[in-house]
Amino acid sequence: MSDTRKLQAEPDIDAAAIRLNAAAAEMRFGPETPLALDSGVSLAPFTIAYQTYGHLNAAKSNVVLICHALTLDQYVASRNPVTGKPGGWWSSMVGPGLPLDTDRYFIICPNVIGGCMGTTGPKDVDPKTGKPYGLSFPVITIGDMVRAQAMLLDRLGIADIFCVIGGSMGGMQVLQWAAACPERVFSAIPLATSARHSAQNIAFHEVGRQAIMADPDWRAGNYLAEGTNPAKGLAVARMAAHITYLSEAALHRKFGRNLQDREKITYGFDADFQIESYLRHQGSTFVDRFDANSYLYITRAMDYFDLAADFGGVLANAFKGTKTRFCVVSFTSDWLFPTSENRQTVHALNAAAANVSFVEIATDKGHDAFLLDEPEMFATLRGFIGSAAGRRGLTK
Amino acid sequence: MSDTRKLQAEPDIDAAAIRLNAAAAEMRFGPETPLALDSGVSLAPFTIAYQTYGHLNAAKSNVVLICHALTLDQYVASRNPVTGKPGGWWSSMVGPGLPLDTDRYFIICPNVIGGCMGTTGPKDVDPKTGKPYGLSFPVITIGDMVRAQAMLLDRLGIADIFCVIGGSMGGMQVLQWAAACPERVFSAIPLATSARHSAQNIAFHEVGRQAIMADPDWRAGNYLAEGTNPAKGLAVARMAAHITYLSEAALHRKFGRNLQDREKITYGFDADFQIESYLRHQGSTFVDRFDANSYLYITRAMDYFDLAADFGGVLANAFKGTKTRFCVVSFTSDWLFPTSENRQTVHALNAAAANVSFVEIATDKGHDAFLLDEPEMFATLRGFIGSAAGRRGLTK
Repeated sequence: MSDTRKLQAEPDIDAAAIRLNAAAAEMRFGPETPLALDSGVSLAPFTIAYQTYGHLNAAKSNVVLICHALTLDQYVASRNPVTGKPGGWWSSMVGPGLPLDTDRYFIICPNVIGGCMGTTGPKDVDPKTGKPYGLSFPVITIGDMVRAQAMLLDRLGIADIFCVIGGSMGGMQVLQWAAACPERVFSAIPLATSARHSAQNIAFHEVGRQAIMADPDWRAGNYLAEGTNPAKGLAVARMAAHITYLSEAALHRKFGRNLQDREKITYGFDADFQIESYLRHQGSTFVDRFDANSYLYITRAMDYFDLAADFGGVLANAFKGTKTRFCVVSFTSDWLFPTSENRQTVHALNAAAANVSFVEIATDKGHDAFLLDEPEMFATLRGFIGSAAGRRGLTK
Repeated sequence: MSDTRKLQAEPDIDAAAIRLNAAAAEMRFGPETPLALDSGVSLAPFTIAYQTYGHLNAAKSNVVLICHALTLDQYVASRNPVTGKPGGWWSSMVGPGLPLDTDRYFIICPNVIGGCMGTTGPKDVDPKTGKPYGLSFPVITIGDMVRAQAMLLDRLGIADIFCVIGGSMGGMQVLQWAAACPERVFSAIPLATSARHSAQNIAFHEVGRQAIMADPDWRAGNYLAEGTNPAKGLAVARMAAHITYLSEAALHRKFGRNLQDREKITYGFDADFQIESYLRHQGSTFVDRFDANSYLYITRAMDYFDLAADFGGVLANAFKGTKTRFCVVSFTSDWLFPTSENRQTVHALNAAAANVSFVEIATDKGHDAFLLDEPEMFATLRGFIGSAAGRRGLTK
């Protein structure tokens, strides 16, 4: 592991990170170990940035792999160095005594290939040209993301994953892991996801991409080299996407038609309504932490995801003979990855005679529910993971 | 009516228009008859462009007023001079023997104030400056649209409307008519609409407006004077909106994950999927027929619509003592103006002891169903309108 740089979190910055034994690391893969992409392209060299929590046991049998969603990253439960937010995006799930118990499991979350938080992506310099890749970065797939993660685990000497878990695009990676490397996956938890991206979801992604590409500061993807920033286009993309992460009921409850810092409408185009102000804020903060080209590449990877297509068009074939234990979770008000989509995965798993639990959780919080305080989700996952840990002989 | 220019459709251009006695006209209102807007501004002079079909009877008792939706226009059942499309957007509804029977009713459809098809809007020249209004055009409301229509009818000597009908934003105008001028409205048909714009719908509109305003060719609304065209921003706005007009099921049935003119994905950002190609087409054709600033103004009018707010916060008060006969129609797969929103109108009408029929039509075509071939909708409207015509003493 001479090519691993491990940076222990500083105690004065994030005391909680110490409690979780949080560590940020990077793994570098040189020209001799290229990543073979689905497109046929070999990507080399490349780096995977990842975060770990907890301690790897001697048998290396307590590994939990967290796969992150579209715009999330490896900072699951500790300070995000870009946003400065102390807690991480899943601190309700990962920590001592939490469902993903850092006293029991060794948790690892890599930034996806194509991302912009340390893992190689379009904003990085192409060693062949000395310039940022931009659109010359190869198009990647969910399969490529998982293949890169597998290379990382191989390099770390980790053969088996006790549990792979993720929501949304993270859930796609979970399904891909279970289908591509069933022998390595003891248990799998796909949350609020689908085995194939729907026409409506492709449509929303295409709107976001067109918004970015319509921004003249995008410069045909070359904005880093040209010193511009397609912030307006990326903000519009984020705003459109953000609506799909929430439910109509949640928007109504949270904002309704409430006015923003005023008593009357202004008969103008300012953000009269709180929902407008909120959306604009979502757009403007997003551009400070995310790369526009990464957004294009990662949305494309999701669009291309169609697990059954790799198995003769029959999803059940993807799980044939699997011994992995599955827990599929959906949320009633999630209209981006509705229960019906998750149920199709369950039907395929049943057809493959897999060991599967399925829970639909009643909530009005929409797709984002998997990131939020959902007691029934916590209880479900605590039960499923604890039971799997017992079967796996993992003691506290 | 010396200020009315009436242009009979030429027979060689549109034979069907003759059969319908279609006529395009403009009514001009001079400085002495300003439109008093909800914002407090007086708009003068202004023009209302409108289209008529059928013949006004001697008693002037057979008037049907059609209120159009956000991006539609007065060309309901005849050739649209801008797009060149021969049929009009509601030719399945308006014509001899159709539910809005041109042999029986005199049908009138005005372009809304703020529009871009002949009625005064932001693309027109402000006589005070000699330049296009742009953002100096006053913000308008659904109430203003209806007030302008009332002035048109007054000028035409039409006191009573036999039936006012419209879908989506057209339905908002129908509700506004029924609330503001109940004594003038014999029957009212609000289709796929709401008495107040929801937070989610405001959010989608805000995304569209931000997409337009993010386009540097928008020039702070001054693009006509500066000779530019925010076509890319307007196209993105249209694409985002268009998704909301359809249902997930319709998109799945129509496009699914079908590829566009190719057998394999290309690992790129071209329109690999039919849904992408379709959306791009929707965006690019829209900009040829619609003004970007009109899009801002009309979406804003919808956002501001909250009928109950004008009646002490109680929607039923808007319909107190009404004698108008109502037929409210919703569509099961419409998630932009779902049945629940339409049902709130029905509850208010019931609370006001109004005469109301309510039909929810099962379809997978989404919000756009009101524009499409929906036999149950045709049957419902044929029945309701025919019965109302009988009560009104309108014979064929």
